Amino acid sequence: MTAVFDTEKQPFPLVIRSLGIDTHQEPTVYLRRNSHVCRAEGFTTASRVQIDNEHSRIIATLHIVDNETLLAPGEIGLSNSAAKALNAPDGSIVHVCHPKPIRSLSHLRHKVYGHRLNDAQMKSIIQDIIAGLYADVHLATFITACAGDNLNQDEIICLTRAMLEAGENLDWQQSLVVDKHCVGGLPGNRTTPIVVSIVTACGGIMPKTSSRAITSPAGTADTMSTMTDVELDLDVLKQVVNQEGGCLAWGGSVHLSPADDILIRAERELDLDSEGQMVASVLSKKIAAGSSHVLIDIPVGPTAKVRSDEAANLLSRLLINTGAALGLKVEVICTDGTQPVGHGIGPALEAVDIIKVLKNDIDAPQDLKERALLLAGKILEMAGLAPAGEGWGKACKTLENGTAWQKFHRICNMQGGFKQPPTAHYQYSWSSETSGKVTEIDNRHLAKLAKLAGAPEDLAAGVTLDVKLGHTVLQGDTLLMIHAESPGALNYAIEFLQDHKDMIRIQA
Amino acid sequence: MTAVFDTEKQPFPLVIRSLGIDTHQEPTVYLRRNSHVCRAEGFTTASRVQIDNEHSRIIATLHIVDNETLLAPGEIGLSNSAAKALNAPDGSIVHVCHPKPIRSLSHLRHKVYGHRLNDAQMKSIIQDIIAGLYADVHLATFITACAGDNLNQDEIICLTRAMLEAGENLDWQQSLVVDKHCVGGLPGNRTTPIVVSIVTACGGIMPKTSSRAITSPAGTADTMSTMTDVELDLDVLKQVVNQEGGCLAWGGSVHLSPADDILIRAERELDLDSEGQMVASVLSKKIAAGSSHVLIDIPVGPTAKVRSDEAANLLSRLLINTGAALGLKVEVICTDGTQPVGHGIGPALEAVDIIKVLKNDIDAPQDLKERALLLAGKILEMAGLAPAGEGWGKACKTLENGTAWQKFHRICNMQGGFKQPPTAHYQYSWSSETSGKVTEIDNRHLAKLAKLAGAPEDLAAGVTLDVKLGHTVLQGDTLLMIHAESPGALNYAIEFLQDHKDMIRIQA
Repeated sequence: MTAVFDTEKQPFPLVIRSLGIDTHQEPTVYLRRNSHVCRAEGFTTASRVQIDNEHSRIIATLHIVDNETLLAPGEIGLSNSAAKALNAPDGSIVHVCHPKPIRSLSHLRHKVYGHRLNDAQMKSIIQDIIAGLYADVHLATFITACAGDNLNQDEIICLTRAMLEAGENLDWQQSLVVDKHCVGGLPGNRTTPIVVSIVTACGGIMPKTSSRAITSPAGTADTMSTMTDVELDLDVLKQVVNQEGGCLAWGGSVHLSPADDILIRAERELDLDSEGQMVASVLSKKIAAGSSHVLIDIPVGPTAKVRSDEAANLLSRLLINTGAALGLKVEVICTDGTQPVGHGIGPALEAVDIIKVLKNDIDAPQDLKERALLLAGKILEMAGLAPAGEGWGKACKTLENGTAWQKFHRICNMQGGFKQPPTAHYQYSWSSETSGKVTEIDNRHLAKLAKLAGAPEDLAAGVTLDVKLGHTVLQGDTLLMIHAESPGALNYAIEFLQDHKDMIRIQA
Repeated sequence: MTAVFDTEKQPFPLVIRSLGIDTHQEPTVYLRRNSHVCRAEGFTTASRVQIDNEHSRIIATLHIVDNETLLAPGEIGLSNSAAKALNAPDGSIVHVCHPKPIRSLSHLRHKVYGHRLNDAQMKSIIQDIIAGLYADVHLATFITACAGDNLNQDEIICLTRAMLEAGENLDWQQSLVVDKHCVGGLPGNRTTPIVVSIVTACGGIMPKTSSRAITSPAGTADTMSTMTDVELDLDVLKQVVNQEGGCLAWGGSVHLSPADDILIRAERELDLDSEGQMVASVLSKKIAAGSSHVLIDIPVGPTAKVRSDEAANLLSRLLINTGAALGLKVEVICTDGTQPVGHGIGPALEAVDIIKVLKNDIDAPQDLKERALLLAGKILEMAGLAPAGEGWGKACKTLENGTAWQKFHRICNMQGGFKQPPTAHYQYSWSSETSGKVTEIDNRHLAKLAKLAGAPEDLAAGVTLDVKLGHTVLQGDTLLMIHAESPGALNYAIEFLQDHKDMIRIQA
């Protein structure tokens, strides 16, 4: 081969300048349109570019700048996420070039066109996602291609393994480590903190890491964050578990499944659920957290995430089979998903319910308590801490004699101290326009109402529900209250409520 | 209902400041993190926000700014695309709030989860896309959900109708208006300018609007833009057609299918093809351009876009049936797609071939000429300008006696003047390492090579191919040349070539 042009690389050194622009998880860099590097490399805006210094390399999205006051000649601007990923001081030197084609994108296309992904392909996609090579639009494509039931059993196992291998894996040097998970879709069903307190109070090992909400108004990590610190680093988490037998931490901060953390943020933005991704997300984190046994709660109801027994059975099989393929014993329990659980919907409002149950308060929501006892009893039996059939009784005793509350308090203290959940600044109460019996409650609309009110970002925001199915109400009785941290969010929720008054049906 | 909080809206007036940041087609706005509006509305970065003034409303992505030198208190920064969409001067006042939920996103989710879209749902998605309500990630989701063969015949008709209704529709007051289209995938197959010149020289009406490249190294609009102006407004386009019987314009600038223009840009970024979207894209533009009859060229070959006769038949049926449902007569012709056509691959390099054919140059590529004559002949027959069986002869005569070249020149002159296509600054020639016969040429790899060299963005970039299937070459003979506008792009293409030397196979 004879080169007409010298193929030696000619990089242009550029000086870093953090612009203080927050572009969320997509690292973005800024270059002047008339810069040498843009002209020489033929960069156009929204190009993906590679940025190198001696220590690190990132791929970022380019926004070309026409305004010459923003950047000096020879400078490259960095968004907050680009600056964080590159981890180099302002004024230091980087080089920019075209990134190599991302090989795993061809696997992704393969999937989009209806083919199946194997172990190696899934692994390379997950690795590239963690390496930050995927732009937001690529993440959206991956999530869409995996949404609904687009992944089969084999692909789910591949995805779970890929996520597992890509993160930290904990080892508790114990043969029996238990965990629980709820597939969600049932507002207020926040049993985890109660279950962990009971099980660990009985001597079980339950290093619980939870996620933040994906498309719901609260995740367990959001709720726990209103009562204590959930962003624990690995050393602290280990200390808490070694001393108390359990913890109630956010999974993201210990990097058990960094790919999942990225995907969950993107799923939330798109408001898309994926059965396969959910299975992989849940199980990869359980295995990475060192669990040997996990109990999974699937609430079933017409407006829950899982709407029918058939769907619940299908999901159970996926969970059990995927767990089995990776050495995790999974048990599934299907529960009533016809209406929300407890009183509050939203991080802090659910925390209030949890505290009441743990403290055996007279107005503690009984449905939340009963569900927590059912799950805790099952787990005590799975862990061999109670003989078959006696788990519930032991759980009940542990809760009612105050041992669970003491345990919860100790865990919170180890995690940085217990604090009272915050309350919201704005409220709006909705009263019944008629008298009659409550015949239907729409979980999805209530969840949406709580989200419009600001949950989960505004921790104190959400909805408190004053009625249950079968209750008799009189005209003027309060059905629910909206709690919000800003007038805008409150107005927005009220507007939605007025358009969807049938989210609580009253029949005369 | 009793409001604890006054629901009266409290908008915060903000002063516009164009920041001169080019965020491509996603309008982006910038607000200070400590601004009243961010705190009151609970905006987080990457939120979608609605911006209103008296005249217009846009939805944009928010990037929160931590750097206080970028924006003064009370200012809102606009990206170039946001400023263009809002069309308001710097210093004028806008209000920002949460946008209403985008209703069509629930239809999109419906599709992602495997359901079918009907007319009304497709229409609302397309309308929201045109209204700029979709962020790039939503566009990526829509494209992914429609990719491959994910749309069925009914959905393709719905999508075509939705795209058609959303744009300008031309009426030439003629009963017979012809058009052609090639489904692509065959580098260098740039027959359109030749066919239009022949057909209009014979008195046909052929108001040709073409697209720019989606995933290929050149589209007809890219190639034509190297010889004349293709961004014609509607009045100019009408003038050209009324005088010359035809034009060779870019479809995007006359807004025949504005949704398609947006989708094509997003598809290009993701490098994803969709059969259904392609059918809808092609046919909606043909009908919108006022065509009554259209001839579609489907090159079939192992490395063309359509790889088998079965796939070609399936696509033909989709095209013919969708056309029929919307009153357009579609004829399909399947052609040889085993190797590139002509000499050049890339906008300007293909233009050079076209000019040679039109001028009957001695070194004009014969394969390009023959394909153009075949198509032109068919169209002359469809349009009743030649009796059955005599189209080819008439086309041949029109080309060889110079009438077609004169016509081409006149059309270019009406579109702003004819110019010579540019040539690239950097070249690299690749010589055969052995002697033998050319047995295989990989269209896809050659297309990729031309793209890596900078096509279609760099108009002069691409590849010239010096051999055809069956040619005998000697060691040292030039097989192809890479043409690039920047050293970076040239290096990149050379690297790819070195990794894929089998894109041209020589057997001893």
